[in-house]
Amino acid sequence: MIRAAILGATGYTAFELMRLLLRHPGVELTMLTSRQEDQPHVGEVHPQLYGRLDLRLQTTRVDEILAAADVVFSCLPHAASAELVKPLVDGGARVVDFSADYRLTNRAEYEAWYGVEHPDPQRIGKVPYGLPEWFREEIREASLVANPGCFPTSAILPLGPLLRAHLIEPDDIIVDSKTGVSGAGRTPKLAFHYPECNESISAYGVGRHRHTPEMDQLLAAHGGQTVEVLFTPHLAPMERGILSTCYAKLRDGVTERDALELLRNTYRDEPFIRVVDHLPATRHVSGSNFCDITVRSSRGRLVVLSAIDNLIKGASGAAVQNFNCMYGFDETTALL
Amino acid sequence: MIRAAILGATGYTAFELMRLLLRHPGVELTMLTSRQEDQPHVGEVHPQLYGRLDLRLQTTRVDEILAAADVVFSCLPHAASAELVKPLVDGGARVVDFSADYRLTNRAEYEAWYGVEHPDPQRIGKVPYGLPEWFREEIREASLVANPGCFPTSAILPLGPLLRAHLIEPDDIIVDSKTGVSGAGRTPKLAFHYPECNESISAYGVGRHRHTPEMDQLLAAHGGQTVEVLFTPHLAPMERGILSTCYAKLRDGVTERDALELLRNTYRDEPFIRVVDHLPATRHVSGSNFCDITVRSSRGRLVVLSAIDNLIKGASGAAVQNFNCMYGFDETTALL
Amino acid sequence: MIRAAILGATGYTAFELMRLLLRHPGVELTMLTSRQEDQPHVGEVHPQLYGRLDLRLQTTRVDEILAAADVVFSCLPHAASAELVKPLVDGGARVVDFSADYRLTNRAEYEAWYGVEHPDPQRIGKVPYGLPEWFREEIREASLVANPGCFPTSAILPLGPLLRAHLIEPDDIIVDSKTGVSGAGRTPKLAFHYPECNESISAYGVGRHRHTPEMDQLLAAHGGQTVEVLFTPHLAPMERGILSTCYAKLRDGVTERDALELLRNTYRDEPFIRVVDHLPATRHVSGSNFCDITVRSSRGRLVVLSAIDNLIKGASGAAVQNFNCMYGFDETTALL
Amino acid sequence: MIRAAILGATGYTAFELMRLLLRHPGVELTMLTSRQEDQPHVGEVHPQLYGRLDLRLQTTRVDEILAAADVVFSCLPHAASAELVKPLVDGGARVVDFSADYRLTNRAEYEAWYGVEHPDPQRIGKVPYGLPEWFREEIREASLVANPGCFPTSAILPLGPLLRAHLIEPDDIIVDSKTGVSGAGRTPKLAFHYPECNESISAYGVGRHRHTPEMDQLLAAHGGQTVEVLFTPHLAPMERGILSTCYAKLRDGVTERDALELLRNTYRDEPFIRVVDHLPATRHVSGSNFCDITVRSSRGRLVVLSAIDNLIKGASGAAVQNFNCMYGFDETTALL
Repeated sequence: MIRAAILGATGYTAFELMRLLLRHPGVELTMLTSRQEDQPHVGEVHPQLYGRLDLRLQTTRVDEILAAADVVFSCLPHAASAELVKPLVDGGARVVDFSADYRLTNRAEYEAWYGVEHPDPQRIGKVPYGLPEWFREEIREASLVANPGCFPTSAILPLGPLLRAHLIEPDDIIVDSKTGVSGAGRTPKLAFHYPECNESISAYGVGRHRHTPEMDQLLAAHGGQTVEVLFTPHLAPMERGILSTCYAKLRDGVTERDALELLRNTYRDEPFIRVVDHLPATRHVSGSNFCDITVRSSRGRLVVLSAIDNLIKGASGAAVQNFNCMYGFDETTALL
Repeated sequence: MIRAAILGATGYTAFELMRLLLRHPGVELTMLTSRQEDQPHVGEVHPQLYGRLDLRLQTTRVDEILAAADVVFSCLPHAASAELVKPLVDGGARVVDFSADYRLTNRAEYEAWYGVEHPDPQRIGKVPYGLPEWFREEIREASLVANPGCFPTSAILPLGPLLRAHLIEPDDIIVDSKTGVSGAGRTPKLAFHYPECNESISAYGVGRHRHTPEMDQLLAAHGGQTVEVLFTPHLAPMERGILSTCYAKLRDGVTERDALELLRNTYRDEPFIRVVDHLPATRHVSGSNFCDITVRSSRGRLVVLSAIDNLIKGASGAAVQNFNCMYGFDETTALL
Repeated sequence: MIRAAILGATGYTAFELMRLLLRHPGVELTMLTSRQEDQPHVGEVHPQLYGRLDLRLQTTRVDEILAAADVVFSCLPHAASAELVKPLVDGGARVVDFSADYRLTNRAEYEAWYGVEHPDPQRIGKVPYGLPEWFREEIREASLVANPGCFPTSAILPLGPLLRAHLIEPDDIIVDSKTGVSGAGRTPKLAFHYPECNESISAYGVGRHRHTPEMDQLLAAHGGQTVEVLFTPHLAPMERGILSTCYAKLRDGVTERDALELLRNTYRDEPFIRVVDHLPATRHVSGSNFCDITVRSSRGRLVVLSAIDNLIKGASGAAVQNFNCMYGFDETTALL
Repeated sequence: MIRAAILGATGYTAFELMRLLLRHPGVELTMLTSRQEDQPHVGEVHPQLYGRLDLRLQTTRVDEILAAADVVFSCLPHAASAELVKPLVDGGARVVDFSADYRLTNRAEYEAWYGVEHPDPQRIGKVPYGLPEWFREEIREASLVANPGCFPTSAILPLGPLLRAHLIEPDDIIVDSKTGVSGAGRTPKLAFHYPECNESISAYGVGRHRHTPEMDQLLAAHGGQTVEVLFTPHLAPMERGILSTCYAKLRDGVTERDALELLRNTYRDEPFIRVVDHLPATRHVSGSNFCDITVRSSRGRLVVLSAIDNLIKGASGAAVQNFNCMYGFDETTALL
């Protein structure tokens, strides 16, 4: 049994991770941490887990984590995460990091977008981006994996292969995403107070969301040239799910059918990518690790649509898929 | 034009009050207060009112309020409200108080349930309870009116007349209420964070909610003997509305039809009470000052059902109705 | 008092229209029609109106409508609407038509997009498009007004002036709209069954929605050249509201500030257009006739955001605004 | 591998059942049936299952079902279910029946409440009620199990032991339940159209719901005397979940603590019953087979609160638990 610790165990991604790992035949959860001084029982923090897991949330100490766990899932926010990930990896643990700390390969870009000095700059650019569909080989051997952002996952999974195959133009790509409120985390704020976001939809951070450079970087690698995505996230009155509606110019002579075929061929053997004919809805993937994708063409543009559960394929499911990859389990273990 | 001030203008009841008063032909809003030091414009606090009302939220000073307003609506929490209401009424303003401070007629009971010393004990018991359907005459002359609690409004409007007419037994009355999240106010808390209360229903404060003694007191006055209501509020995943399902024992020989007739006769001339045949839904009264009521009998019990909008008939609509009463306007002004 | 009839009175737009007209000091509702044979009372069809309006829904007869009403609001579906509008206007009634029948000025285009023969082809192209902000003069004199589509209203109000002033390019405009479920009407269908659309967001009719040619036509008139909008509507898990996120290329040298200033100047005196600095949310305009607009620039594109209530500014509020215009009332009557 | 068929595979309970059985290591789904003539693929009917299950929905033929399946889950409505269950059990299949057909032990009562003649009257009273917590032994040997109703499950699990231990009075029990919309099935109807039930709560079928005699019967068996529950179901604006708030008179001298202890002792070894100290919320059990229970006492009454997921512990999870029991699997298989 592989012993697992979860850092930052009070939030929604940590909860989903526990729910998934409790179903995993090869994992034992041995430690949960949080900043709460009173060490609450996990059943108080997440009443859904009452009676299922007998652990208290402890404050963080690196040596204790290293003693208790083989693998560490960090659900900490950026910068706070890398500060702990550094000594943990140095100390021999394997880590899946949910934060953005090791996703961007350019330190200056990271520090500009995130407004902090990177706590572990030597590792920047050496950590595989945790999208097994693209980087399975690197993930298998890695001691540290950068779990992808939720919005990038939904957008790049379909856009990447289309760029690589030169079916769409690399310039003038627009990603219009709609997400549920759980993506904002579990800390109460006015913007996420029930009567404020119920029955309302709005954009936020137009052109300034931190997932923008992540999309740019991954798509540039696929397209072989600079990509500058115009990204607009929206908050929708639902708990979970991301629908991304992406707009790209079709290359001359390329049809909707060409694009669909390419995606179908690319992901034919992937257990969690479903290239479908119908228009995807977040409901279809809710609670699952699937990414449903389709395309439509209209007026010279390809409209690329994809749906994921932001907490599963966009976070904790991806982490378990990465873990399975790292430890040689079937990638679907605990995920179907 | 009657000049009106609103104290505690950042919350939901204050917003609904402004929305209603902006439609009132005899009122001019002249002052809004809050504890926020930076004096935000009301259009920043309530973007719905952008361009409709050109006021900043000021910190509270009694002399300024007295200079600016004829009537004051206090949306402050209990105790904080009475502390300001006292000098305002003493200074000559007429006040509608949304808090519980002047509803209970027994000081000891107030202090036991609310856990504070009453800031204005001399007025206790001398302030009309702001239910125009029952206390219209007293309200007309009052300098201070105690705006009713939302749950009591929904429960006592139907139960009171049934008790007075001896159609139901005064003991063993159960009130099972379901409310939307706006009833909890606008301060962000984990319990009202969107992903926590979406898609979930739960009871809270079973038998310990502060609206219990308010129901007891008003029903005792109607029933002519002590009443001890068992009250269970529930939080439902919606923004607004209260449905109260009340259970009372039918007196021997009394039928469902008798109860319905009695209610229909009692409220025949009331503009905001609708005694209906169908089962009420909170949707039917959403955004309105109506209270929809019906009854069903089953197995010796009368099931009394009523629906209101907690922010309108349960708060701000009632306040405007009281104001209309106090100042001689038609009671429906700005409310239809 | 102007006597008004509403055709197709069972739906959501008709309900909102009644709610608004009941507040209008110059209107008396004298007739409601529907296809229901049993002539239900309006209080049964819309329990919100119980006790407020004493009319039964009658089956439609032109002569009776002409006898009963000065103005007719048709909430009928396309084609069915024009079939009745024709004899009503011929018979001397003034009509506000909610359907698409008189919006497109090109008969062939209408018949291609709607798949029916137009029942009243002579009037095509002679009916003012009911956007008072643009066509106030024509509406004043009109016997028939084509009430705009909800999506076009939200998109063209901001895009039109930007095109006219040459701040954005007329080609490659994308409109990504998110709407609440009430836009789909009141007929039960699986796609709008609560458990199907709750907690889910999805696109529909990508590039094929019938509001596309309506946007093209109105924007072409403003831009002075052909416009082909790529329009993607989405169904969001909420009852009402439309947020449109529009993407257009900025002309060389034009800034976000230029665009905002232009919009502000254009709509300075309009009572229902609010050009704001913050990002609009459908909540801010819910239940109101406002259209909130702002812009952001990013990566060479202007992101134009607007929010309306699909049932009010997108339907019934616009109809009342048109009615006010036609009959010389202040345009805001019954709408604030 | 046990071969399983599902009858009536288009609905929500059938979907949840497939989702659970796909995780079951001992089950192979071999047949799905529906009344749809065009034999749609299950991935079209339930897009969530796209790529996961390669079956078409067939019209029903008893001989084909008997050839294809060892165990049959019937998700058909009452009467339609028993008509098929009869020949299937006669033909040697083991059956879990989701309908009410075999729950009531009194034929006359069944026919009075359900308004139909029972299609298989000889089996009435001989079929175990599928609550493993109470009838595990009978279920193990049964060829046919009557899967319990969702509301009865939530109410009787806590009330039964309290009655049996004489902690509460058997008369004057009130069950006030709140359910999500999925409980109404998947057939579109106006009452369950999104804009009708969103943001609204209402009671329905007060005192006349068909789950009433089911509660009476099971509680009478536990209490040793006639029980007549007053049952009021409510429709809440959420997709899934039932919260039951039950009111019973405490016997003299019995305390809240006594009741909680009794429940805790009764269900100590049950994997799916959690007797908790906090107030249960439907969110805590959403997607799970748990029933969370607690009690509060107030004013002589015991308030008994329980939460289940209506589609899991209230339907498909219970069915899998029964199946596990019937075939000797650990009862939690596929359910945690």
